[in-house]
Amino acid sequence: MSELKIKKLQNALKGVADYAIVNVGPNFFYLTGVWPLASMERPFFLVVPADNEPFIVAPELYTPDIKNIEVEKILYKDGENPFSILAKRLKKGIVLIDDIMTASHALRIQMNLDGYSFDLLSSIISKLRAVKSEEEVELIKKATNIVDKSFKKIVQEIYSGITENELAQVLNEYMMYYGADGLAFETIVASGPNSAEPHHLTGKRKIRKGDAIIIDYGARYRGYVSDITRTVYFGSVDTKFLEVYETVKKAQEAAVNFAKPGVEAREIDRAARSVIEANGYGPNFTHRTGHGIGVEVHEQPFLDSYNTLKIENGMVFTVEPGIYIEGKFGVRIEDDVILKNRAERLTRSSRSLITI
Amino acid sequence: MSELKIKKLQNALKGVADYAIVNVGPNFFYLTGVWPLASMERPFFLVVPADNEPFIVAPELYTPDIKNIEVEKILYKDGENPFSILAKRLKKGIVLIDDIMTASHALRIQMNLDGYSFDLLSSIISKLRAVKSEEEVELIKKATNIVDKSFKKIVQEIYSGITENELAQVLNEYMMYYGADGLAFETIVASGPNSAEPHHLTGKRKIRKGDAIIIDYGARYRGYVSDITRTVYFGSVDTKFLEVYETVKKAQEAAVNFAKPGVEAREIDRAARSVIEANGYGPNFTHRTGHGIGVEVHEQPFLDSYNTLKIENGMVFTVEPGIYIEGKFGVRIEDDVILKNRAERLTRSSRSLITI
Repeated sequence: MSELKIKKLQNALKGVADYAIVNVGPNFFYLTGVWPLASMERPFFLVVPADNEPFIVAPELYTPDIKNIEVEKILYKDGENPFSILAKRLKKGIVLIDDIMTASHALRIQMNLDGYSFDLLSSIISKLRAVKSEEEVELIKKATNIVDKSFKKIVQEIYSGITENELAQVLNEYMMYYGADGLAFETIVASGPNSAEPHHLTGKRKIRKGDAIIIDYGARYRGYVSDITRTVYFGSVDTKFLEVYETVKKAQEAAVNFAKPGVEAREIDRAARSVIEANGYGPNFTHRTGHGIGVEVHEQPFLDSYNTLKIENGMVFTVEPGIYIEGKFGVRIEDDVILKNRAERLTRSSRSLITI
Repeated sequence: MSELKIKKLQNALKGVADYAIVNVGPNFFYLTGVWPLASMERPFFLVVPADNEPFIVAPELYTPDIKNIEVEKILYKDGENPFSILAKRLKKGIVLIDDIMTASHALRIQMNLDGYSFDLLSSIISKLRAVKSEEEVELIKKATNIVDKSFKKIVQEIYSGITENELAQVLNEYMMYYGADGLAFETIVASGPNSAEPHHLTGKRKIRKGDAIIIDYGARYRGYVSDITRTVYFGSVDTKFLEVYETVKKAQEAAVNFAKPGVEAREIDRAARSVIEANGYGPNFTHRTGHGIGVEVHEQPFLDSYNTLKIENGMVFTVEPGIYIEGKFGVRIEDDVILKNRAERLTRSSRSLITI
């Protein structure tokens, strides 16, 4: 339980809303230090009133998971209605609902809290979470260290005939071996023409000579994540691939170098995009340049073309431009950086092209 | 795209609601056969009007993922507002929102559809999904076959000092080796006193002599899942453990034998619970007896103490009673069954106690 973080949230609530209903998940973990492995099926909330003590409404089944959180706990059994418990405890007012709550629970809260008004919790908590404490940065550094060590190993594991799934499994084992508590997200291995799909599902395709291989993965360490992408080449590269690779590398460096306190998130996106456009690949860079990381793999600051959020010291985010040539290959290079007057890379794996 | 399933949904909508907004996820997969690996961040919906053609609203980024779904597609770029697109296309009426949609999107839909009324999609789609087609049953059988084969292997991989995480990783590899497309859920390995926590997170604990080990895992095959639990013992068992094990085994058999068409889901739960209560372990059976499986690991029919849903032929569900002795050990035995006048086991791994 982080009393400091709860207090910060309550300060942010004042004058804006009366209650925050925080669902089990990243915001809950951020505030309590605990992330129960609870399915989203059963309502499981931390309620933070603007000017009163927080309390938890949880399924009795999960009593052991929350035993170390020192707040009042209202436990319900299967078959009891946790929404009517909420209705009894909350005075009419403005209720912020955690963005990741399921519609299933959000609509039932609304049905039970007639006459209340509702808005989304992200409107205030995203900015609190974006700026990391020193303790949080240390955990992220552990997570980036794990992916760097794993990268050195995984490039040695590529051979003709290994499938994307198999390579991903080996990579996952290296992350666990180097101390990960789990994966930050399902590892992406996209080979050959699959690498041209920015959101390819790792599959059964066998890797063969002449493949570009995008490897996008992350480790979780005590709840905090890293997220790295490298593109390697299996075989001898042609000039076209080299040109694309170098363009992505330059775009990534341009964005990293551009990041300074007070700069808008969208300006960093622009810095990367300009390089890619100047080389004629504008239409092939089909996603945003990056996103914050912390207890989630995608959080503020989002480095897209629209986000006017000004970045601040202590923010940690990815920089990951890419170019995708449909049916042929793709290249993406992603690092995690922390803003300390300038962007310092936390992931340190080589960005020079590795061919196998 | 399953036109038959869409048609069934439209028939069910008639007289109840005007639109179903189906989020990317299990319902979307059920209706379209496609499950894009899309984060929940960007709105990504299949809209099914009761009496008009369905259409998709999707981020442009995911164009390749939906290319094989033959419906109208409204693609939006980052920075465009998909909710105002919805507002233009939907006439005032009753809108069913997919239960798994995030509150983030559900509240924004509500803000943009002023004067509409809202209810949850589960109210009609859960029952459609619970009864499996023959094609769906075939896929589930492939998935149960994978976990059975993997179980035979994993009991040979237990040695003193292997951690829960490591054992889970090896098990995951076996599932992939035997043809799984992925995991149905994060594999649970709970050893020693951890096995007494029904929702233990697989961790770094080293397995040692005298441990009960609960292994709860599942495979995904072409979108359909299996879910199995076995409890094995590392060392020589004492009479207390044996007694608990046999009680759970009997309870599981009682529930499987009780299941017949027309029986209420809660009656199957009762059949298992009665055996455990009769042996004095009622308070130690702290969860429901089972749940449906299909495109999700938890779906209807839920075998809890309250569900009055009548089970029907074609339903596929787990039967998984357990007894948990705090601080000492736990036992859970779980099989997947299909109802064909009686419950036939799809998972066939031995239920006799295995000691290592």
